[in-house]
Amino acid sequence: MVWDAWGIPAGHKPLSAQVRNLLAQVFGISGDPLARRDEGDVPLRASALRQDARAGLSAVVGAAHVSVDHDDRLRHAGGKSTPDLLRRRAQGPQDAPDAVVFPADHEQVLAVLAYCAENAVAVVPFGGGTSVVGGVEPLRGRFATVIALDLRRLDTVTGIDPISGTAVLGAGLTGPRAEELLAAHGLSLGHFPQSFQFASIGGFAATRSSGQASAGYGRFDDMVQRLRVATPSGTMDMGRAPASAAGPDLRELFVGSEGTLGVITEVTVRVHPVPETTAYQAWSFPDFATGAAALRAVVQAGAAPTVLRLSDEAETGVNLARAGDIGGAAVTGCLAVTTFEGSAAHVAARSAEAYDLLAAAGGKALGETPAREWEHGRFAAPYMRDALLDLGVLCETLETATNWSNLSELKAKVTAALTDSLTAQGTPALVMCHISHSYPTGASLYFTVIAKQLDDPIAQWHRAKNAVGDAIVASGGTITHHHAVGADHRPWMSAEIGELGVRVLRAVKAELDPTGILNPGKLVP
Amino acid sequence: MVWDAWGIPAGHKPLSAQVRNLLAQVFGISGDPLARRDEGDVPLRASALRQDARAGLSAVVGAAHVSVDHDDRLRHAGGKSTPDLLRRRAQGPQDAPDAVVFPADHEQVLAVLAYCAENAVAVVPFGGGTSVVGGVEPLRGRFATVIALDLRRLDTVTGIDPISGTAVLGAGLTGPRAEELLAAHGLSLGHFPQSFQFASIGGFAATRSSGQASAGYGRFDDMVQRLRVATPSGTMDMGRAPASAAGPDLRELFVGSEGTLGVITEVTVRVHPVPETTAYQAWSFPDFATGAAALRAVVQAGAAPTVLRLSDEAETGVNLARAGDIGGAAVTGCLAVTTFEGSAAHVAARSAEAYDLLAAAGGKALGETPAREWEHGRFAAPYMRDALLDLGVLCETLETATNWSNLSELKAKVTAALTDSLTAQGTPALVMCHISHSYPTGASLYFTVIAKQLDDPIAQWHRAKNAVGDAIVASGGTITHHHAVGADHRPWMSAEIGELGVRVLRAVKAELDPTGILNPGKLVP
Repeated sequence: MVWDAWGIPAGHKPLSAQVRNLLAQVFGISGDPLARRDEGDVPLRASALRQDARAGLSAVVGAAHVSVDHDDRLRHAGGKSTPDLLRRRAQGPQDAPDAVVFPADHEQVLAVLAYCAENAVAVVPFGGGTSVVGGVEPLRGRFATVIALDLRRLDTVTGIDPISGTAVLGAGLTGPRAEELLAAHGLSLGHFPQSFQFASIGGFAATRSSGQASAGYGRFDDMVQRLRVATPSGTMDMGRAPASAAGPDLRELFVGSEGTLGVITEVTVRVHPVPETTAYQAWSFPDFATGAAALRAVVQAGAAPTVLRLSDEAETGVNLARAGDIGGAAVTGCLAVTTFEGSAAHVAARSAEAYDLLAAAGGKALGETPAREWEHGRFAAPYMRDALLDLGVLCETLETATNWSNLSELKAKVTAALTDSLTAQGTPALVMCHISHSYPTGASLYFTVIAKQLDDPIAQWHRAKNAVGDAIVASGGTITHHHAVGADHRPWMSAEIGELGVRVLRAVKAELDPTGILNPGKLVP
Repeated sequence: MVWDAWGIPAGHKPLSAQVRNLLAQVFGISGDPLARRDEGDVPLRASALRQDARAGLSAVVGAAHVSVDHDDRLRHAGGKSTPDLLRRRAQGPQDAPDAVVFPADHEQVLAVLAYCAENAVAVVPFGGGTSVVGGVEPLRGRFATVIALDLRRLDTVTGIDPISGTAVLGAGLTGPRAEELLAAHGLSLGHFPQSFQFASIGGFAATRSSGQASAGYGRFDDMVQRLRVATPSGTMDMGRAPASAAGPDLRELFVGSEGTLGVITEVTVRVHPVPETTAYQAWSFPDFATGAAALRAVVQAGAAPTVLRLSDEAETGVNLARAGDIGGAAVTGCLAVTTFEGSAAHVAARSAEAYDLLAAAGGKALGETPAREWEHGRFAAPYMRDALLDLGVLCETLETATNWSNLSELKAKVTAALTDSLTAQGTPALVMCHISHSYPTGASLYFTVIAKQLDDPIAQWHRAKNAVGDAIVASGGTITHHHAVGADHRPWMSAEIGELGVRVLRAVKAELDPTGILNPGKLVP
């Protein structure tokens, strides 16, 4: 992963002249946008790691696995939100962890945490570094030193159980590497969030990630059967069975704990055979409300698609404008995408039931092509954001979820909060939305907003984001459906879980991390 | 609910002469079994409720809703495990809560807890009183006084949202009353554990109940969208959306908390339209392993039955012996039952897929009748236990769950532990087993054991239960799949969640219940 943008260099390409002209026309882009900087030239705040701490950590993981190297530190300097990427383009020194430590296994993680707890070193657990909510910012809290604990060496797949459909995945495995190792056994995890190509198994669990095939395979939370977690107070090992009534489900405390309660080192996940066949079917709906009602009919009937998505009018229209990039066909109204995976008979029965429900709900079947095109381009959006930033366009995403009966109102309120805030600051705003995760009782809403970068685009976005966070809470949505809390959503955690809920989290943290070294400034208010 | 047995008087009937003769022959029953006692004649330990506490509680809920009446106390004296019922047949005074308090709503529950925390009164939250693990025993802990907090007055259904498929259920609603009130709106919850007729919504949530239709509608845990909980430290209100990434899922701390962390007063649940149609299909498998593999194929394919069960050879054979009671047809080998609910098209597609999978896995289709007979008799077993106790036969159930690959070994180990312990004590034992809850990665095992009552049947069962608990832990099963922990499974909680897990639970309890008044002696070691 490059330090100041998404992904790998080969993924980056400029926008077409057609799109650039359109953007200039709509947003009145002009001036001199912040350009990316050369990695080697970026000054870093000097490392505060003392020699004794370096020696102490080296004694645990080996000197070769404690790095104060400029590039290592820079590449662990934070996540991939738009404000993160804009900060990387700023002049002046960048903040970064004082060192990057690469443990080899669970026992080394335990020992690193014990050392850091005793020696007042803050620890930021680091997987793929794809957080878009400030989840891996190198915040020091009340400590003089902060390290990034990079888990990439915990990268094995063990304990494959084809009868039970489970496998034990190291926390540092990336999505593609986990799929590759599982595929050697004819198995798949089926978790494909937009961060898939770079994010890690531990990160998926720590942030309650939800992938594009969540309709079929569930959220990552649902896939977790067993968790092994290293904490300053020792090891937690949870999940003896597929289901249990043995008290509170403590796994659910660590799934979503974002490195504040412990470091997830190993996740036993539910896997399934690589599907025999995949069926694709795209749909057009005259408007978003009609499309949402159609999706609702499908999930409430249990028609079990693997992918089920609906873009609103604005997003469907922009997809059209992006046609040159992804080879897309022209679609009007609201585009919906469905896929079905499994045996041929299974797929035939499910897709037939869904077809009837979507058609009855007002959908017009568009055939396979737009669905295959969506799949083909589905990991490209973060690269496009970098190209937009290059042009002086602000682009960011945010998401929430609510019950079906509240979905339209929440969508309207979020759209209004974004539009009003940005317009008041002096730029038009284009707000696009899609449903990517549906449940029997409700769905997620994923927003992409595009505007002109003003003089201080970080402050500009901060104001818009504040307005949206307040609007989401006031409108009954959750403050995040799958991006997690990190530093950025922390101001709304008390609204989400109540003051007493915050006290419960603090009590758990005090037990597991009594000195407070774990990921300061994240999640827990 | 009668005080000393299951259910209502009309449910009780003696076993047929045929069954009694068979039991006498197999187990060598003789002597003079403990008979049930007349409710009015049972002496109770004198109430320790002081006048000032009675006045204080009356000030909260009204004097009419604080009872020290003999019958009220006796009916809150504990749950319905076999040791519970045997104790009720013993001579001498019975233990009972010092009073029964009936709050009207969430605010009164909060006020009762505040009063009790301040005045050192232990509180046992009480729903239907159907616990089979000592979950509602009136244990005082370090307090002089203990009250049962009966939630029956929290009995409304509100907030019906037919679009989202949710409803807000009062914690004190019984299963049938909740279904009745939902049916008026064309909706159903679909939660049918064996305790259904008497257990409460709050109890389902507090114990992670799992119903007979769990294959279709999920465990009760899965149905819970939002929870309102009264604690001595205030109110917890959790679950703003169908799914969220806003940190740990605190609902999962309270689902399964068994009244030790707070009192669940209101549960927002997922509901569905009353199904258009139900299809029934029974199967015979030559042996349990073949049948289990067939069930596995069905759930791993996502063929989505509503009910999916498999009895082992012994249980299938005894069902045959019980034929006179439930009008059953003769089935050999291992009986499996499937049902499918939904629209006609949905049911047709699902049942066809499952039919093909079960037939391919070695099943012989038996048609509808044995499946309908199972459904007809499915709430009768606890009544039969009372009839067996009348005869001097010991009868108890227990359950666990594990991964598919470990299922046969766990079944063998539990069976051996029961048989060995009881045989060594001097009675033959009949151990029957079924799978009633299947998941993609594993399944539950539910055991019924029948033996002769020895001189001290409570101590006899205690020894057998200890042997089984140890065997389950040693064999990798969970200590309970759906009966919960209560007082009876508490000795194995450290094995289930680890010492550090226990410390986490204690930290949460210390925050929410700092004086420790809530359900002393249950769940948390």
